[in-house]
Amino acid sequence: MPEAGEKIVAVEEATRFMVDCMVSAGSSRSHAEQLADVLVAGDVRGHYSHGMNRLDMYVRDVQEGVCRKDGSPKVLKERAASVWVDGNNLLGPVVGNFCMDLATKKAKEAGVGWVVARGSNHFGIAGWYSMQAMKQGLLGMAFTNTSPIMYPTRSSKPALGTNPLTLAAKATRDVFVLDMATTTVAVGKIEIAARKSQSVPQTWGVASDGFVSSDPGKILAGGGLLPLGGTEVDGGYKGYGLAALVEIFCGILGGAHWGPHVRKWMSTAADADLVC
Amino acid sequence: MPEAGEKIVAVEEATRFMVDCMVSAGSSRSHAEQLADVLVAGDVRGHYSHGMNRLDMYVRDVQEGVCRKDGSPKVLKERAASVWVDGNNLLGPVVGNFCMDLATKKAKEAGVGWVVARGSNHFGIAGWYSMQAMKQGLLGMAFTNTSPIMYPTRSSKPALGTNPLTLAAKATRDVFVLDMATTTVAVGKIEIAARKSQSVPQTWGVASDGFVSSDPGKILAGGGLLPLGGTEVDGGYKGYGLAALVEIFCGILGGAHWGPHVRKWMSTAADADLVC
Repeated sequence: MPEAGEKIVAVEEATRFMVDCMVSAGSSRSHAEQLADVLVAGDVRGHYSHGMNRLDMYVRDVQEGVCRKDGSPKVLKERAASVWVDGNNLLGPVVGNFCMDLATKKAKEAGVGWVVARGSNHFGIAGWYSMQAMKQGLLGMAFTNTSPIMYPTRSSKPALGTNPLTLAAKATRDVFVLDMATTTVAVGKIEIAARKSQSVPQTWGVASDGFVSSDPGKILAGGGLLPLGGTEVDGGYKGYGLAALVEIFCGILGGAHWGPHVRKWMSTAADADLVC
Repeated sequence: MPEAGEKIVAVEEATRFMVDCMVSAGSSRSHAEQLADVLVAGDVRGHYSHGMNRLDMYVRDVQEGVCRKDGSPKVLKERAASVWVDGNNLLGPVVGNFCMDLATKKAKEAGVGWVVARGSNHFGIAGWYSMQAMKQGLLGMAFTNTSPIMYPTRSSKPALGTNPLTLAAKATRDVFVLDMATTTVAVGKIEIAARKSQSVPQTWGVASDGFVSSDPGKILAGGGLLPLGGTEVDGGYKGYGLAALVEIFCGILGGAHWGPHVRKWMSTAADADLVC
């Protein structure tokens, strides 16, 4: 049930609205539809931070020319089980879908399909892509690097992103879908605590000096997130290692920006050149 | 420098000692040598819990016939990039090396090589296998399921193991080797705290009732480990998800024992039937 001031909107109407916004901004209809499908899926699964909530960012990226309006990703190199793709700075979901289609085809032929793209952009929930493979009876995985906001263990500066990973696997009566950031929490959880004036656990974030803080205001004002595990004694170096794993699979393997060299979150000063 | 009561032994001598012990127990020389190489590598890298410290377990497994003394793993199914192997209940390192050789060969041909084995046994440090691929200029990964000792989030019983994962990647001037259990810590760290009568952080383990405990004695006496992250508010469900990922790649995909069905640690009542 909706709370006071909330309104429930049908999936079809939410999709139509987002497609219209993107087409008005200049996107091709096909690209707008691919984006809207991922964002709606994010909202339907309860990841509101990765749904319509982010539409204005995509609209702005296309309007300002930071992200291309139309075109196709391009295969740069191909083997029986692997492909290297140039996303041509298109919308993340367009690049992600292109790669997942290729990975699924390769996996059916060779047993495994591993596709890496450079020149991509924010692609919504990672689970959208792993679930595409799952729906075809395969194990699906997806990874993406993101803008630096995570402070590695013993670091006084952010160096890696929330770098999510996902695995989706179908069983007889249920499905297993892991879709997680490699930080303890996403930024959204800190924002909610700040709005409620609540303190957060010692495993979530740091202030701008890199020291642990339970004050969401300090974490948001120039601080950042802790890797999964939290501080060193709680195993935070493992979350740091996992974020580095994602970075190697994406930024390094794709030949794109990586780690601290990825542009700041929400910046339009340069191409994101992300990888999935 | 060695502390009082400690003695430094040359790698060659440690290797010779372990080979002799395994051959005396009945192992073929080649299998004994493969085991000794992994255990020495564990010790040299500082993972003393996975080095000579465990030799008596392997000796006993071979002596009691829980693990086979000689023979070869067998390929059950093969595609361009994937192989399914029966480890024939041989020593873990024999199965692990066999699989990694196949994976490396496939990766060079097809771009990716993914090999799953059933019927394996404890294989030492997972990083031994990922580093084999790394030495050949590839990205190396390895996974293994283990005996159930981890309490998933909100669980009152252990259901998964420490289920490690590893990635090894070579760079121009250095290497990246992630080799981690998906629990916050390994059992060894709890044992050390118990010996020193120290309490442990709230993110490490639970007592036998599944509730968090900082008393290493209670954790070791019928309790167990928390997944990476620790409790629910600290993101422990993510470590639980990662352990499940490893279990899907190993026990489920290999068609072997999985999760709570894996025999108890150090038990010789049945074949381990682990997977790597």
